[in-house]
Amino acid sequence: MRSDRAAGAMRPVVLERGVVRQAEGSCLSAFGNTRVLCAVSVEDGVPAWRKGSGQGWITSEYAMLPRATRTRAPRERSHLGGRTHEIQRLIGRSVRAMLDDYRFGEVTLRVDCDVLDADGGTRTAAITGACVAVIDAFDWLIQRGRLEVTPVRRRVAAVSVGVVDGMACLDLDYEEDVRAAVDMNVVMSSEGRFVEVQGTGEHGTFDRAELDGLLSLAEAGIATLDASQRAALGGR
Amino acid sequence: MRSDRAAGAMRPVVLERGVVRQAEGSCLSAFGNTRVLCAVSVEDGVPAWRKGSGQGWITSEYAMLPRATRTRAPRERSHLGGRTHEIQRLIGRSVRAMLDDYRFGEVTLRVDCDVLDADGGTRTAAITGACVAVIDAFDWLIQRGRLEVTPVRRRVAAVSVGVVDGMACLDLDYEEDVRAAVDMNVVMSSEGRFVEVQGTGEHGTFDRAELDGLLSLAEAGIATLDASQRAALGGR
Amino acid sequence: MRSDRAAGAMRPVVLERGVVRQAEGSCLSAFGNTRVLCAVSVEDGVPAWRKGSGQGWITSEYAMLPRATRTRAPRERSHLGGRTHEIQRLIGRSVRAMLDDYRFGEVTLRVDCDVLDADGGTRTAAITGACVAVIDAFDWLIQRGRLEVTPVRRRVAAVSVGVVDGMACLDLDYEEDVRAAVDMNVVMSSEGRFVEVQGTGEHGTFDRAELDGLLSLAEAGIATLDASQRAALGGR
Amino acid sequence: MRSDRAAGAMRPVVLERGVVRQAEGSCLSAFGNTRVLCAVSVEDGVPAWRKGSGQGWITSEYAMLPRATRTRAPRERSHLGGRTHEIQRLIGRSVRAMLDDYRFGEVTLRVDCDVLDADGGTRTAAITGACVAVIDAFDWLIQRGRLEVTPVRRRVAAVSVGVVDGMACLDLDYEEDVRAAVDMNVVMSSEGRFVEVQGTGEHGTFDRAELDGLLSLAEAGIATLDASQRAALGGR
Amino acid sequence: MRSDRAAGAMRPVVLERGVVRQAEGSCLSAFGNTRVLCAVSVEDGVPAWRKGSGQGWITSEYAMLPRATRTRAPRERSHLGGRTHEIQRLIGRSVRAMLDDYRFGEVTLRVDCDVLDADGGTRTAAITGACVAVIDAFDWLIQRGRLEVTPVRRRVAAVSVGVVDGMACLDLDYEEDVRAAVDMNVVMSSEGRFVEVQGTGEHGTFDRAELDGLLSLAEAGIATLDASQRAALGGR
Amino acid sequence: MRSDRAAGAMRPVVLERGVVRQAEGSCLSAFGNTRVLCAVSVEDGVPAWRKGSGQGWITSEYAMLPRATRTRAPRERSHLGGRTHEIQRLIGRSVRAMLDDYRFGEVTLRVDCDVLDADGGTRTAAITGACVAVIDAFDWLIQRGRLEVTPVRRRVAAVSVGVVDGMACLDLDYEEDVRAAVDMNVVMSSEGRFVEVQGTGEHGTFDRAELDGLLSLAEAGIATLDASQRAALGGR
Repeated sequence: MRSDRAAGAMRPVVLERGVVRQAEGSCLSAFGNTRVLCAVSVEDGVPAWRKGSGQGWITSEYAMLPRATRTRAPRERSHLGGRTHEIQRLIGRSVRAMLDDYRFGEVTLRVDCDVLDADGGTRTAAITGACVAVIDAFDWLIQRGRLEVTPVRRRVAAVSVGVVDGMACLDLDYEEDVRAAVDMNVVMSSEGRFVEVQGTGEHGTFDRAELDGLLSLAEAGIATLDASQRAALGGR
Repeated sequence: MRSDRAAGAMRPVVLERGVVRQAEGSCLSAFGNTRVLCAVSVEDGVPAWRKGSGQGWITSEYAMLPRATRTRAPRERSHLGGRTHEIQRLIGRSVRAMLDDYRFGEVTLRVDCDVLDADGGTRTAAITGACVAVIDAFDWLIQRGRLEVTPVRRRVAAVSVGVVDGMACLDLDYEEDVRAAVDMNVVMSSEGRFVEVQGTGEHGTFDRAELDGLLSLAEAGIATLDASQRAALGGR
Repeated sequence: MRSDRAAGAMRPVVLERGVVRQAEGSCLSAFGNTRVLCAVSVEDGVPAWRKGSGQGWITSEYAMLPRATRTRAPRERSHLGGRTHEIQRLIGRSVRAMLDDYRFGEVTLRVDCDVLDADGGTRTAAITGACVAVIDAFDWLIQRGRLEVTPVRRRVAAVSVGVVDGMACLDLDYEEDVRAAVDMNVVMSSEGRFVEVQGTGEHGTFDRAELDGLLSLAEAGIATLDASQRAALGGR
Repeated sequence: MRSDRAAGAMRPVVLERGVVRQAEGSCLSAFGNTRVLCAVSVEDGVPAWRKGSGQGWITSEYAMLPRATRTRAPRERSHLGGRTHEIQRLIGRSVRAMLDDYRFGEVTLRVDCDVLDADGGTRTAAITGACVAVIDAFDWLIQRGRLEVTPVRRRVAAVSVGVVDGMACLDLDYEEDVRAAVDMNVVMSSEGRFVEVQGTGEHGTFDRAELDGLLSLAEAGIATLDASQRAALGGR
Repeated sequence: MRSDRAAGAMRPVVLERGVVRQAEGSCLSAFGNTRVLCAVSVEDGVPAWRKGSGQGWITSEYAMLPRATRTRAPRERSHLGGRTHEIQRLIGRSVRAMLDDYRFGEVTLRVDCDVLDADGGTRTAAITGACVAVIDAFDWLIQRGRLEVTPVRRRVAAVSVGVVDGMACLDLDYEEDVRAAVDMNVVMSSEGRFVEVQGTGEHGTFDRAELDGLLSLAEAGIATLDASQRAALGGR
Repeated sequence: MRSDRAAGAMRPVVLERGVVRQAEGSCLSAFGNTRVLCAVSVEDGVPAWRKGSGQGWITSEYAMLPRATRTRAPRERSHLGGRTHEIQRLIGRSVRAMLDDYRFGEVTLRVDCDVLDADGGTRTAAITGACVAVIDAFDWLIQRGRLEVTPVRRRVAAVSVGVVDGMACLDLDYEEDVRAAVDMNVVMSSEGRFVEVQGTGEHGTFDRAELDGLLSLAEAGIATLDASQRAALGGR
């Protein structure tokens, strides 16, 4: 049995807006000890392949402070590792799913997710916080008169689920993540639909019933996160 | 409707063993026009973090020949892109799922998957071919008297599924992949269990029913691929 | 005249210990809006040139979160810029001046200084906070029984001074730093001696009298910082 | 004596056109076990130094699949080695010698030579195959109506010669190449003139008579290759 | 006591103009055994951040030949070390202090300082020689009719001072530099004002009186160097 | 006709030994304006592939000072270009041809060739000077008692020849090199045998008779260079 909470319970979730003084939108996202600083920068221009389209773009970068982890992890100063690439691509796809189109002019929103403390679930905390920061950044554009209405159509949130010691668990911390036979990250929209499902069984495989059980746990967790986002955003 | 085959049909699958003259195991894997050369190298030694354990390791690298694609893609000669990282990590995890442990001595099997022609599904063709090449490489070790029994416990195969023009389709080609609203890669074992499920909805989200339909299509495709692997391996 | 404080006044200084949960020593150092997270990692082993000496080493890395600045600054992911090199070398030299020798075994203290908010004086805030975190890391070694007495002989602190609009000012913020004709960073020990003096006049030169005036301002600022360090450390 | 053929004999030569489905010109070139895939990409635009000239350019890249060799050779993913640089520069110069001028518009032909199997003579097989693929790529431009006449004035082919166990030999395989006291690569035109002569004696020097003997062997080998190219091209 | 000269004496100084045949300005600068080749290249255009301003720029690069040192130092072929960064930034700031503005058109002067022999004080010899070469490069622009008057308002020179075996010394050689408790580099203008003061006490700290003594020594050294520059420039 | 000398004449050759104060062997090699500084470093140890063999190794690095050329060429600070790779590999092979074996212990001779002034023929001047510096470095080992007899069996020298304006010319300068239809570099031993022959016809091809003529010119040039080397070495 899980020592500190039920198998289907989230760790305490905190979403604190405006924590990065100079950013156009920001949110500190904490799932238990895990803390991720999400900052959105609004930049003029778009990547080369999109120039002249009149449309914008949203992209993301992810990094961990060297001492976010139990033992220090070297900075990625000469090249990015595969894990970083995977995560920042996932965050980018997830926040782009908040929109149906990019008709907000040739402007790029760059979402920086920097992990201050890593205790499992850093990518899911990052996505959940990035969503809030992106909403604020579009509001900043509206307040500056550079946009009339927000292109945001839905929120997105993410949570991890996994099979730990034979038990399906929600929102794994670092210790559980290391022991998990199956590990799954699920990104869902505020409309209750899936944006991304990534399930991996490196220490074992899983069958259709286990997959179904994990997805149900994830749906419950996402509902909790969505409520936290709504509360943080003052009901919007 | 799909022009050349049913929504639930695979493209013609070819698995040809022994195509890389100097490798310890190899397999050309073709799904329609897509062709991937899988070559396994048996190398003495293991990564630093595993030294002294007495256990081996399996890892993978993935690349595309520059003209595997419709327009030439530059070689990754100064750094690896995120897509390459993601795919070669996926291949590595998938072939490692063929084993329950690494008790074959401090030996590394390095699986090179080089795409000769890219028409969608290169990562799934790579995994399906890599499985066959890895089985042959372990047999090579047995024939050389360096191993008594194979550590291989099961085969793995992979296939893509997706929602194209509103229809769930198996084994997408390049044209379909570009149009797909939802794209999913599924890796399964010969025991019918999931190794990895990666579903992405960048051009739209998906609900639980759609997810279930795609998984069922994938299961059928994997059964076909598993039969092809068994045939290529002469019934083993 | 300076709008918010006297020419010889520091901005509010905050030194908060223990903010990085998993580090052996840590300190958040704030000079006004400028905030730097200092984390010390105790690692077994020393650089190659020091192996077999029985002596330890202290080194430092410095980075800014991309949105610490008014407009986003790209991450240094392929190579380090000259400014980063200069600053992290300066921090390393400064904290090494806290010791007279390295007789604490073949152990490396790695001091990570990550800027959360940059409003001028990030390197001086980093040094001032790093000193506190290093003292705590040596105490951690003593508490673990790995060291009998601390090798720390003195504290170090740092402050910037400069000539802004013809007036010598202490602890420049970003706006002042940009306008300064002369900019000087001064590192001093708790014994009132200089560790490092770096004065630059890119927008003008300076004479001996101006240099003397700036050094006196710096000495006063350092006395304030030293008191803050003593208070943060509970009088040690 | 050579085990499998006369000192002045080539290994079996195969030149197979059109093997890269999506390329504008391609040729698989085999000299015995050595197999090189040559693919030509027609790209709009020219390098910066040639812009505005109205003239085109031809350039080449060379690589080996990791398991083309007896023991696996790591991919060149962070930088190119000296050998790769030398060979791809040589291929580029050689195919450019097929033309007298570049009056085919601001278009670049990029020739990718990827070694599938390396058994000595990979650079000479590459040049010989690249020539055929370049001819086809110019014909593709003519068929698309983008060019009226081909700028190709002559074919080029290449062969290695060397002194092995004291005997001058044509077209060395890997075993012979390793043992050779003198190793020479010769590129010639279909007009019987030299394009490039590179003779090296790392394991010994050579005199004028030996050089003459090797050049005569090379001339004979080139005549054979030229006939193979003519046959592959249907007599053109 | 110093074996070969008084504590306040410079080593023999040589400034030889025009030593780099193809450069627009050049100077070999020798302080004793230390020899630095300074070459100025006049290039059209300015860095991106200055384009359209109508103003020029001066920048510098610094390197050592591998065998300038007692034991060979590897070339910096994949990235620059921190020391190189620091020095070339210092040289750049120092030569820019020769001007009050950059109104010489969108032209960049690039100052290459290459150390042929390193016996301490390479950065100070570089700055002293670079000043002479920059003056000549501006004269070259005037002679070509591309500039009416030189923007140079003053000369700059640099010297090292330090505390060696308890004694304040001018112009340290390599042996002294290694032993120095305090090491300071001072850049001054021909008007007798400071451009840059960088004092470091890695092997010990220093007090205000020691700092004053070192600055006085430096002022004397700079006066000698300024006379050498005037002489080399024929009294200009 | 050539303005300043006969078609078969060398430019003035200078070989000055001992010019790099701290190197174990060194030689400034000048062919006309072209000047190359050759410095040999004797280092303990050998490359990994040679460890435990009891044998030594000789290798070379080549670089140009940025302003050795008419217009400044950027330093190769992030990666080496193809031309640099080719040349330093050629220098290495050439000086290794001075020996028949490497029985001088596990010691590496590293030959740095740095071009101070580039007016054509930098690689041939480098080889000719490197030979002299290597001889001195082996003598240094003998004088230190670390070697009994020199492993040097012969000298090597190198010269360029080419067809300029239809005329075969010896020792091309930069202007001639740019115009040459055929360009050949020839390395020969003091025994009159070839070490390396590299002939290229990028602006035209060449026949056997032209090749013969160029080789004869080169033989004459090498004889001159060999005499210069003997003289520089005091008749050894």
